[in-house]
Amino acid sequence: MADKQVPLVVIRRLPRYHRYLGELLNNKIYRVSSTELSEKMGVTASQIRQDLNCFGGFGQQGYGYNVEMLYDSITKILGLDKGYKTIIIGAGNLGKALANYAGFEKRGFKLCAVFDNNKDVIGKTIAGCKVLAYADAQGFIEKEKPDIAILAVPKLAVTKVADDMVKFGIKALWNFAYVDLDLPGDVLVENVHLSDSLMTLSYRMNELGDNK
Amino acid sequence: MADKQVPLVVIRRLPRYHRYLGELLNNKIYRVSSTELSEKMGVTASQIRQDLNCFGGFGQQGYGYNVEMLYDSITKILGLDKGYKTIIIGAGNLGKALANYAGFEKRGFKLCAVFDNNKDVIGKTIAGCKVLAYADAQGFIEKEKPDIAILAVPKLAVTKVADDMVKFGIKALWNFAYVDLDLPGDVLVENVHLSDSLMTLSYRMNELGDNK
Repeated sequence: MADKQVPLVVIRRLPRYHRYLGELLNNKIYRVSSTELSEKMGVTASQIRQDLNCFGGFGQQGYGYNVEMLYDSITKILGLDKGYKTIIIGAGNLGKALANYAGFEKRGFKLCAVFDNNKDVIGKTIAGCKVLAYADAQGFIEKEKPDIAILAVPKLAVTKVADDMVKFGIKALWNFAYVDLDLPGDVLVENVHLSDSLMTLSYRMNELGDNK
Repeated sequence: MADKQVPLVVIRRLPRYHRYLGELLNNKIYRVSSTELSEKMGVTASQIRQDLNCFGGFGQQGYGYNVEMLYDSITKILGLDKGYKTIIIGAGNLGKALANYAGFEKRGFKLCAVFDNNKDVIGKTIAGCKVLAYADAQGFIEKEKPDIAILAVPKLAVTKVADDMVKFGIKALWNFAYVDLDLPGDVLVENVHLSDSLMTLSYRMNELGDNK
């Protein structure tokens, strides 16, 4: 579907397009001009046209974009129609927060298990999933073949857990520990470094302060 | 300190430099070449030189970078030496996870209160902070003047809470709700859209699948 040459920076904007278009659909708006979309998104209309042209373009001169068609296309480009199955490793506060995050299921991701090695939480139910013992992860993964492992474990544990996941056959990791993982080339990893975003905010505050 | 013309894309890489340099210091490595730094970070050496030149450059020909000096400089550029005071609104799973996130304090952010309107959690202690009633937030903020409000509240509540924060005098918001906030121009907002990162992962998985 997608052109292999699409720059990562464009890819990273697609979820935002998806979100805005989803909101338009929720508000029963079925047609949008690139100018309107650009005002809502705070990027230039020409950037929007350029971005969407990377995927073949969806606009019609004088009509604008068909919101539903564009939304469906971006859904497919992002693979959100695949119903990827996820597991969460770590049933602490972050694991629980992620399990309960309504946005994931809405975007087609299916949580099928949560694992932990803490006896106090094993057997409890989080977001409709029973927390399973981490010792049983291998058997579960080999049988159920989840697509994505979400790593919500402490920094000290994550390297071992990531290696385990790869050994058990997982091909995509979404990592929340503050460690950049070094894994085989065919394993996809998205790292979420929460502090990075807080530090960007801090930079902007500091810059404002200096220019006062 | 920082040049106003530094592109945001460079700024967004600074936290990563900061993280890597911090790790080098932890490992008692005090000198690094741009080539070594580039291998560790997975970006080109020329990109590193270009990025750091935005801030005046820190390297010496034939010596490389003084890790401690570079780390301290980036600490200052990012405002991490300011000891910005934070409050968290929302003591649910996400709020708790954020309060307990060791990385923030290590980077100079000081959590001074957590607020919620749920009677079951008010009065409990999270990460050494007592959870206060949201009704008392205004008094607390006007007295303590925290710098950053971390919004860990549900999507439906966030617009009202953000408006309150601005009214109470907060100038920087770190928002985890899946809503782009529309606030006065002098209020800084960093939005963290967790699903965006998951969707990027999904895109990469889908792209690999299509090209198999």
